[in-house]
Amino acid sequence: MKNTFGHSVAVTLFGESHGEAIGAVLDGLAPGIPVDEAFIAAQLDLRRPFGKISTPRQESDPFRIVSGCFNGVTTGTPLTVLIPNGDTQSKDYSKTKDLARPGHADLTAQLKYHGYQDYRGGGHFSGRITAALVAAGAIAIGALERKGIRIRSHIRACAGIADRPFAGDEQGLLADFAALRGAKFPVLDEQAGEAMKARVLEAAQAHDSVGGILETAVCGLPAGVGEPWFDTLESVLSHMLFAVPAVKGVEFGDGFALSDMRGSEANDPYRVENGRYVTATNHNGGINGGISNGMPILFRCAFKPTTSIFREQDTVDFVKEENTTLALEGRHDPVIVHRAAVVVDSVTALVLCDQLALRYGTDWLAE
Amino acid sequence: MKNTFGHSVAVTLFGESHGEAIGAVLDGLAPGIPVDEAFIAAQLDLRRPFGKISTPRQESDPFRIVSGCFNGVTTGTPLTVLIPNGDTQSKDYSKTKDLARPGHADLTAQLKYHGYQDYRGGGHFSGRITAALVAAGAIAIGALERKGIRIRSHIRACAGIADRPFAGDEQGLLADFAALRGAKFPVLDEQAGEAMKARVLEAAQAHDSVGGILETAVCGLPAGVGEPWFDTLESVLSHMLFAVPAVKGVEFGDGFALSDMRGSEANDPYRVENGRYVTATNHNGGINGGISNGMPILFRCAFKPTTSIFREQDTVDFVKEENTTLALEGRHDPVIVHRAAVVVDSVTALVLCDQLALRYGTDWLAE
Amino acid sequence: MKNTFGHSVAVTLFGESHGEAIGAVLDGLAPGIPVDEAFIAAQLDLRRPFGKISTPRQESDPFRIVSGCFNGVTTGTPLTVLIPNGDTQSKDYSKTKDLARPGHADLTAQLKYHGYQDYRGGGHFSGRITAALVAAGAIAIGALERKGIRIRSHIRACAGIADRPFAGDEQGLLADFAALRGAKFPVLDEQAGEAMKARVLEAAQAHDSVGGILETAVCGLPAGVGEPWFDTLESVLSHMLFAVPAVKGVEFGDGFALSDMRGSEANDPYRVENGRYVTATNHNGGINGGISNGMPILFRCAFKPTTSIFREQDTVDFVKEENTTLALEGRHDPVIVHRAAVVVDSVTALVLCDQLALRYGTDWLAE
Amino acid sequence: MKNTFGHSVAVTLFGESHGEAIGAVLDGLAPGIPVDEAFIAAQLDLRRPFGKISTPRQESDPFRIVSGCFNGVTTGTPLTVLIPNGDTQSKDYSKTKDLARPGHADLTAQLKYHGYQDYRGGGHFSGRITAALVAAGAIAIGALERKGIRIRSHIRACAGIADRPFAGDEQGLLADFAALRGAKFPVLDEQAGEAMKARVLEAAQAHDSVGGILETAVCGLPAGVGEPWFDTLESVLSHMLFAVPAVKGVEFGDGFALSDMRGSEANDPYRVENGRYVTATNHNGGINGGISNGMPILFRCAFKPTTSIFREQDTVDFVKEENTTLALEGRHDPVIVHRAAVVVDSVTALVLCDQLALRYGTDWLAE
Repeated sequence: MKNTFGHSVAVTLFGESHGEAIGAVLDGLAPGIPVDEAFIAAQLDLRRPFGKISTPRQESDPFRIVSGCFNGVTTGTPLTVLIPNGDTQSKDYSKTKDLARPGHADLTAQLKYHGYQDYRGGGHFSGRITAALVAAGAIAIGALERKGIRIRSHIRACAGIADRPFAGDEQGLLADFAALRGAKFPVLDEQAGEAMKARVLEAAQAHDSVGGILETAVCGLPAGVGEPWFDTLESVLSHMLFAVPAVKGVEFGDGFALSDMRGSEANDPYRVENGRYVTATNHNGGINGGISNGMPILFRCAFKPTTSIFREQDTVDFVKEENTTLALEGRHDPVIVHRAAVVVDSVTALVLCDQLALRYGTDWLAE
Repeated sequence: MKNTFGHSVAVTLFGESHGEAIGAVLDGLAPGIPVDEAFIAAQLDLRRPFGKISTPRQESDPFRIVSGCFNGVTTGTPLTVLIPNGDTQSKDYSKTKDLARPGHADLTAQLKYHGYQDYRGGGHFSGRITAALVAAGAIAIGALERKGIRIRSHIRACAGIADRPFAGDEQGLLADFAALRGAKFPVLDEQAGEAMKARVLEAAQAHDSVGGILETAVCGLPAGVGEPWFDTLESVLSHMLFAVPAVKGVEFGDGFALSDMRGSEANDPYRVENGRYVTATNHNGGINGGISNGMPILFRCAFKPTTSIFREQDTVDFVKEENTTLALEGRHDPVIVHRAAVVVDSVTALVLCDQLALRYGTDWLAE
Repeated sequence: MKNTFGHSVAVTLFGESHGEAIGAVLDGLAPGIPVDEAFIAAQLDLRRPFGKISTPRQESDPFRIVSGCFNGVTTGTPLTVLIPNGDTQSKDYSKTKDLARPGHADLTAQLKYHGYQDYRGGGHFSGRITAALVAAGAIAIGALERKGIRIRSHIRACAGIADRPFAGDEQGLLADFAALRGAKFPVLDEQAGEAMKARVLEAAQAHDSVGGILETAVCGLPAGVGEPWFDTLESVLSHMLFAVPAVKGVEFGDGFALSDMRGSEANDPYRVENGRYVTATNHNGGINGGISNGMPILFRCAFKPTTSIFREQDTVDFVKEENTTLALEGRHDPVIVHRAAVVVDSVTALVLCDQLALRYGTDWLAE
Repeated sequence: MKNTFGHSVAVTLFGESHGEAIGAVLDGLAPGIPVDEAFIAAQLDLRRPFGKISTPRQESDPFRIVSGCFNGVTTGTPLTVLIPNGDTQSKDYSKTKDLARPGHADLTAQLKYHGYQDYRGGGHFSGRITAALVAAGAIAIGALERKGIRIRSHIRACAGIADRPFAGDEQGLLADFAALRGAKFPVLDEQAGEAMKARVLEAAQAHDSVGGILETAVCGLPAGVGEPWFDTLESVLSHMLFAVPAVKGVEFGDGFALSDMRGSEANDPYRVENGRYVTATNHNGGINGGISNGMPILFRCAFKPTTSIFREQDTVDFVKEENTTLALEGRHDPVIVHRAAVVVDSVTALVLCDQLALRYGTDWLAE
């Protein structure tokens, strides 16, 4: 439903980049879940720009939880997190407000909203809105961790340089998770990370930008979660992943590479191990028939390069309806994939909370 | 909602492979849309196995429209299409019913449904259920075509062999669409198609299977369709595409390849052309900020190789909870990607009808 | 969503009175719930006309469960019940098809569907469609009864004559339930019932019809079920109750009479009794703040008199757009309230299954 | 979905009485709708207590629109209105927090939320939350008025005294609407209003409270709006009306009185008048088969007496799980029905905006 997602646990997103505030309403989460404000702040911090590879502006994200939290835990009623847009520069947009930045939603928003949209800084389409998803997602992540379900993303590729993939075994995977904790540029191979950053700076100097791929793993999700057909785990996860700005591809397990395999290679053989079903390989990313099989969930999201670049670009003035050129000024990230990692973790957690509520709600009548 | 998808135009799917019937309920479509039973039959025929590369069984799909159609047009009330499972062989499943076919939903269904699922032929998880989606989708495709919106898929790759991509210009694309009409193995380069089929037969002889990639284009979708954040065109399309069995990856525009480009390359410059906004390139697949920009919508789905193969595979007996091996018998397709093309077209049409209704209202399609 | 209701357990309804079939898809119900076809038939039988106070036609309802049931229990995947419209008389509707029967949906359907609706016998608006709700509801009723939750309705008033209300204490209420089992004209006071029937016949002889009030009680619903604000028990129950044709009023507990009480009278005092919270009175019908309090749920539905009467009525020809008169022929019920009792029980059960799934699904993360 | 309602135009509600803020997110409304802050303030003012019949506290409602509004009109993206709980007294709740106020949600919230709910002042169940509905509803009311659709409620009964009903003809009805504009105690017969207030004061002096009935009319709604079965106008309106605290009954047209009529009396005869279909009477409240027929929509809501009274009442301590008594202190309204009128108007407007968007598309309201 446009800006609300979820059946039993649902999140509603609102706000514009230069409005008074952005925020999210998280409804349907169980009561009694700890709301750890320090963890929310830390997660928001992971989304903030840092160092030379990011925009020099200091986006502080002083959030407030204005409902749904009492004595430090969720009440079970809608939890609203509000992030004021305190320090937005009252920039003069009048020169460029009718010029469509290529790759951005400027023109499509104009065609959909007929000029009534808030054009300042991308308005409701700004990547800044993801901060609210991160804040709400932090609570979902905390709820899942109490049940032994862990989510973590790393930069699988950036600017054409690859990180090593996640470890294939659960022990190795948990070690990878530990290594990534708190990383602002989350890679498993530090050397690859340095090479990526060097390329980013190179692109930035060329007034250009780069993209990348995030790889995400989920450990500890019980087997049997997910619904047939229209709520397969892949369906509901991809629905939310494609809501993250700049994502243009999503694949589960070996994804596109599976299309080039043979069945004898792609099928993950089952076996019983310590009273639990496991698969010898995990080409299917822990999902068969849309339902979790107990192995780690694995997926990757492709991010296109940041659309805001300083080079002059051909475009249109959509009020005058004529061709023109545009040279952006201001502050723009040459890469956003590292900042998106925590966003992907967050939406993943929100989706899984909803799926778990749907899954275990069904059982009551069956007991 | 599990087996229902859509807000204004919604489809509900039901049935098992060896039950009495499968079917779909299509709700919310405007009244007065022609229901062309010959076209539905033709679309169903595209999904049926054919020739040497498919299973020898003859799945006939004698559908019946049992509600929502009167005097050959939609009434506007729920349209139900029913496809009886007339000729299911009363095969003896007792030997293998507790053995999880690797890659299939057998084990995950067991863990979710506790043994109550209909295990015969994959039950509700059978690819056969897509026939109902194709029948419902045929009506949606017809409705869209009346408004000048056309959808077509071709096999972009199969068994490691590539077809040429869709033409980049609209005229070329429409020529490609015309060439694909009625094709049971839809490729643009016939030679590539023959090579694919040869490889499929080779895999079949090796008791193995292959996967592939479908590329889909939509022409004529108005600009300004799609919703911000949780109902981006990519979100709602991927939601339904990942409901198609065996799909493990979805990408829009240049998709994963975008992650390796620079912004100056990936941004599609706008220009005004004959009073319409167009882009010089279409790396973003006709979607910016989740909303259509008027250019052709382009996406690709990765299909894993058919999971049912005749080779002996390691697996588990999930009732005895012990390791075992499984050698499938019977009739199985060594490839399904060609049969899936019409399924992808169908779910795409269903999603777009809902998005157009949300965007313009129920009447828009009926005008 | 138009013809689908429910978040976790959802029902989709389809069909027209004179189409091939009517039916319902029940999705999200737990696996392993017994599907008792004899009970479904018995429930359908309660909805069928009988005796002198009903239309002489014999509507047989030979249903078929075409999906979602295996070995006599639910599979957990969509259960579809189909009721063919076998014996519809191929009546000639050409004379009256453009005449709006006063009180019916004929004119409003014309204005909404622009003449494409199936007008025969009321089409999708026919009371006959409730048979599919009864069939689906029978499974829900069975599921609830296994958990000790019982639902029963009686005719609280008909043709101006009142039945005695349900007993106020649980023991008395369960005795009332037992007395109503299988009753085709469900009243608690047989004499009142006979008087009602006499009045119905009197109205029928005057070529007229009567209405009535159903009173429904639910025993055994756990306390703490229902959601704040938009999914209060009253909200979701009334949503479905007003979907039952001819219902024009719904009240919970003492309902409209509460508006005339003082707070000291209307507030139900709590007390602890055998380790359970009970209320000394039940003016609020077992619901406080939209959530069940453990006492019996109590509500009443007002049914307007049957709209089809044999008297000549003023109306319009909506094609010629002119005034005219209409004298109905054929077979019509002078009263339907007794037949609606099982429909109300059915939709109540469907709503409660959904609410229970939502309620207990939430808890998983909280444990 | 718990705290979100609507398919195309949806409202999400959040907040607790003594938390930082309450608010609502209004999503899916067309862009370009004027947001008249003075009108919002005036509507909020109608909900505020006044005079001797209300609590002496001064609830000021200084709202802020923090998203979705730009240059004084809706953007088309989620509009969030925030109402800070500025002056909540930091009262000591420790004495009474475990005592269930009879009639309130205290005990049911405890049983649902296991003690994690915010108990201060009713928390999320407080009537104060309706202020956010009123603010969001004011925008919806404004949008509808631009299309000639008007909504107005009056106190049909209070403390056992009746106001005269709305005029039966449209001209009279519009005159009634004009007379009610801005009224804080909206009655059509001023003498009846004075008598009501006298009874309220009498009840207040007796440390008791009274209830009442609101009657609501909608003028100008086009014919053909509403959906069959699960989204009948009665279904969706009652869903939201029963979300308003203290509502225990809802009836359309003549409602419960219809159950005692004969068909010849209850059926509203159609006729053509000035090229428009009208009915001679309006017993059905402008709705046939769940769809508007072009006549005024008419319904009534029964409000139970305010549950907070100063008399000592029997109740339980739900932590000690023992019987006790409770004598409320503080400030409480002896009646709330007059303050609820604007709440009913607001939810009615929100429902109709969604129904119109479903029926005609988002653009309809913006034309």
